[in-house]
Amino acid sequence: MKPCLHPSLVEMNELEAYLDLAAHCGYEWVDVPLHWIQQEAEKRGASRVEDMFQSRRLQLASFGLPVNLYADEADYVRDLALLSERAAFAVRVGAVRCTTFLWPSIDERPVPYAARLARRLRQCAVTLMPHGVRLGLEYVGPHHLRNKAYPFIQNLADLAVFLEAVGAPNVGYLLDSFHWYTAEESTDDLALLKPEQIVHVHVNDAVEEPSLAHDQKRLLPGEGRIPLVPFLQALYEAGYRGPVSAEVLHQEPLAGTSEQRAQTAYDRLIEMIANAKGDC
Amino acid sequence: MKPCLHPSLVEMNELEAYLDLAAHCGYEWVDVPLHWIQQEAEKRGASRVEDMFQSRRLQLASFGLPVNLYADEADYVRDLALLSERAAFAVRVGAVRCTTFLWPSIDERPVPYAARLARRLRQCAVTLMPHGVRLGLEYVGPHHLRNKAYPFIQNLADLAVFLEAVGAPNVGYLLDSFHWYTAEESTDDLALLKPEQIVHVHVNDAVEEPSLAHDQKRLLPGEGRIPLVPFLQALYEAGYRGPVSAEVLHQEPLAGTSEQRAQTAYDRLIEMIANAKGDC
Amino acid sequence: MKPCLHPSLVEMNELEAYLDLAAHCGYEWVDVPLHWIQQEAEKRGASRVEDMFQSRRLQLASFGLPVNLYADEADYVRDLALLSERAAFAVRVGAVRCTTFLWPSIDERPVPYAARLARRLRQCAVTLMPHGVRLGLEYVGPHHLRNKAYPFIQNLADLAVFLEAVGAPNVGYLLDSFHWYTAEESTDDLALLKPEQIVHVHVNDAVEEPSLAHDQKRLLPGEGRIPLVPFLQALYEAGYRGPVSAEVLHQEPLAGTSEQRAQTAYDRLIEMIANAKGDC
Amino acid sequence: MKPCLHPSLVEMNELEAYLDLAAHCGYEWVDVPLHWIQQEAEKRGASRVEDMFQSRRLQLASFGLPVNLYADEADYVRDLALLSERAAFAVRVGAVRCTTFLWPSIDERPVPYAARLARRLRQCAVTLMPHGVRLGLEYVGPHHLRNKAYPFIQNLADLAVFLEAVGAPNVGYLLDSFHWYTAEESTDDLALLKPEQIVHVHVNDAVEEPSLAHDQKRLLPGEGRIPLVPFLQALYEAGYRGPVSAEVLHQEPLAGTSEQRAQTAYDRLIEMIANAKGDC
Repeated sequence: MKPCLHPSLVEMNELEAYLDLAAHCGYEWVDVPLHWIQQEAEKRGASRVEDMFQSRRLQLASFGLPVNLYADEADYVRDLALLSERAAFAVRVGAVRCTTFLWPSIDERPVPYAARLARRLRQCAVTLMPHGVRLGLEYVGPHHLRNKAYPFIQNLADLAVFLEAVGAPNVGYLLDSFHWYTAEESTDDLALLKPEQIVHVHVNDAVEEPSLAHDQKRLLPGEGRIPLVPFLQALYEAGYRGPVSAEVLHQEPLAGTSEQRAQTAYDRLIEMIANAKGDC
Repeated sequence: MKPCLHPSLVEMNELEAYLDLAAHCGYEWVDVPLHWIQQEAEKRGASRVEDMFQSRRLQLASFGLPVNLYADEADYVRDLALLSERAAFAVRVGAVRCTTFLWPSIDERPVPYAARLARRLRQCAVTLMPHGVRLGLEYVGPHHLRNKAYPFIQNLADLAVFLEAVGAPNVGYLLDSFHWYTAEESTDDLALLKPEQIVHVHVNDAVEEPSLAHDQKRLLPGEGRIPLVPFLQALYEAGYRGPVSAEVLHQEPLAGTSEQRAQTAYDRLIEMIANAKGDC
Repeated sequence: MKPCLHPSLVEMNELEAYLDLAAHCGYEWVDVPLHWIQQEAEKRGASRVEDMFQSRRLQLASFGLPVNLYADEADYVRDLALLSERAAFAVRVGAVRCTTFLWPSIDERPVPYAARLARRLRQCAVTLMPHGVRLGLEYVGPHHLRNKAYPFIQNLADLAVFLEAVGAPNVGYLLDSFHWYTAEESTDDLALLKPEQIVHVHVNDAVEEPSLAHDQKRLLPGEGRIPLVPFLQALYEAGYRGPVSAEVLHQEPLAGTSEQRAQTAYDRLIEMIANAKGDC
Repeated sequence: MKPCLHPSLVEMNELEAYLDLAAHCGYEWVDVPLHWIQQEAEKRGASRVEDMFQSRRLQLASFGLPVNLYADEADYVRDLALLSERAAFAVRVGAVRCTTFLWPSIDERPVPYAARLARRLRQCAVTLMPHGVRLGLEYVGPHHLRNKAYPFIQNLADLAVFLEAVGAPNVGYLLDSFHWYTAEESTDDLALLKPEQIVHVHVNDAVEEPSLAHDQKRLLPGEGRIPLVPFLQALYEAGYRGPVSAEVLHQEPLAGTSEQRAQTAYDRLIEMIANAKGDC
């Protein structure tokens, strides 16, 4: 387990400055929006982008699934046709993880929504197989997002059953401490996981009660009450050894500068991971 | 397309008498509960049962999926382990179709219910593949069965999307005129089907409006207002050439004797099929 | 098990006369070259062809895989693209079996030949799955066909291992008494088969020793020394219940008229099958 | 592309000293026999082994497939049952590549040998899928290993066709400069590869002609006549960005000390990779 810089921590949106900051703080992993990378590659060439990562000894921790899973079939199929090439590019800068999240509630009728989504996720996962890329699905816990007509995937147990419909071997979980906290889950829920089921991890914090914490008002790890060391310890014990990304979604500006937040997150994650491992 | 005798038409529950009646009326296909056949095989031997079919030139049109899809996992897995052998036995008496129905409404939470069921149906379908047996799923239309907490599969369109979650190539539809009528579908809905998607067909009739027709108050084909010739014609045009089974579910006794009903159904189906083909 | 007429028994090559003869002799199953059926359908319409089978209560036992497995990739892919529609048509006249044979010796390098063929057979089998059609592969025993540079599939054991490379669940065996005899196999070799592995059966006879019998000098069942009743009995005991097709390949004209041979084969197969079952 | 230390370069067989040397020379990737790692884990605990890698910022480039593909079925199945857990452990120290080689000639009959091996490799690959691990197969070029009764896989083209029999999406190539040279292949043969098909790369050298070079008399990269920069350039252009492992098999002791060889290989690979990229 090692800290991973997440773009939500910083105000910049320019790739090289972002990677500079990551390297400066000590990160080995970064999460980067795929379109930052693609734009930079179009501007300066793919080799230049690769060099940006390599020269700083940085690896792309994951890339968001570049497929609109909710588009009409024609648009979806076009995205799917482009997925292999896009994955190949992400792999060049170190990625072996692709992620997407599932809504906790929906306005669409649940069964057709779930069935179509399962089929599309299966097709995406199959497309990622030759690249050695796993697909991590993230459930979303905050209660205020349960406001649509029907519940969909609100916790790990919901997601586990939904994966039965997906039915692809390289699909697993993206676990986020905010969702784990707001879903009111315990470390026991994590202890049952097999290492290969955990694709990626997000860490962040909250001060409000689980039922009140707002998805766009997250705090840096260590600034709230989520028991992050036990969270990380459970994942470590389950066998996870990958990046731990500080995804701190927010609407209001976060305190401090980008540099300060990136460094603070790094330092705290280093300490938390050490404590999590030390407690094993 | 040829008529198929269905046990709902008769009062008997003894295999040989049932097959005698089928042969006497002119049927080449019969639907038979698998447990009738198994009990007879245990009593008199499997060869004797096969002879019963062969000597009358009868074939088993389909067998109900002998797996409790809603059991807890341990019981389900036990059923699944027995499925191959049971399918092999049904194949010996001519079956290449296995069927089960899906509820139009459920009390369970829809997404986990659908996801688990999709996975189990996929596993069953895969088990049937080596036998050349297809799995036909039946949607259920009568509105009074929509009384559970959540809707599930109420029409052909619902089922079509659910099959995306199942994701097995040998799974298709069991189309029943009663469900087609109560789901208020048209022949256009059937015209889109590919021949390999239609696994089996049930025919029966209703006098009440679609929204009022009761699942257990069905009529013999020709005694109601369902446009059966257009129904059969659409299936014929879509390429279906298999058995057409007169499934007439009922709670109150049907008029006439078993013999009369079996013969009446045969004669009417012969005529309807001829008209359906003639109109092509 | 029931007799199946095979076109090698007759001199005609016109579908309706062939079906007339089959029905007249008592057959319920016929093997017919797919191009006879397709030509007739183009001439008189598909419905008319279906009526030809139905009005005589005849079913198509099998159809030869209409794909050139040895063509260059472009031609193969074109055949593969047409397979689903061709299978759908064969299914309309009762077929649930598709067959092809494998050479006992080849001039091509064995490993690439086997690997490419395995992949193509897998793709064909997958295409047949939605139709409920199984693919039966036939090994070829006569020793004079072992004259090419390298051995390929010469007996059931060879074929069993080759199926591991194919790796599709709906692929099994076409067993032919001539190949079983010339491969010098025993009934024990057949007893190990599971019913779903036996897709189709050819029966014919030979007077020469196994090592000398010529593939194109076959005899009608009962005219040689192949122990056909034990052969059929072993298949029956293994669970096979399908058609038994009298494939009597020959270069020199066979004795008698088409009618005589078709009737003789029928009568002998009826007797042999009865003996095979009686001995169980 | 970055250099990877290979155990063939060194005389030691103790994990920590090996990792120390790797780190000291500048390597980020190491190839390590899985049993070194397992023995160390049994002795000192898995966490300690992980720390050995992490504290030096080293990643396991690949692990040899820990399955005897040529054992009898019972032993093979036992290995297969252990594969998932062993893969999970290798993944903990950074591995996303599993490799094995295929013989250029065999004494076994080629078709059953190839068919069984294809099925087993497919099963292994499927087992590795949930871990995001790809399986790289290595063809073996040296002519003196073509001495068995039948040719098997002697070059990239042979392997490409054999992969059609394997039929698993996460299986690709391990390319070794020694085999590429002795198979007398060109950079054009590499240029056709897709990035996801290249799983791992070995680099080493030879002074003898391709037909005479001995598999166990390899030289350090740069000490022979294999055009290694064009080799690496072709792989780079094909999209490969992973480790380049200096596998220098030998029977006679190599010149110099372990430390000297490890450093020399590192320095030369760094330069060759730079030249390969620079030439793009």
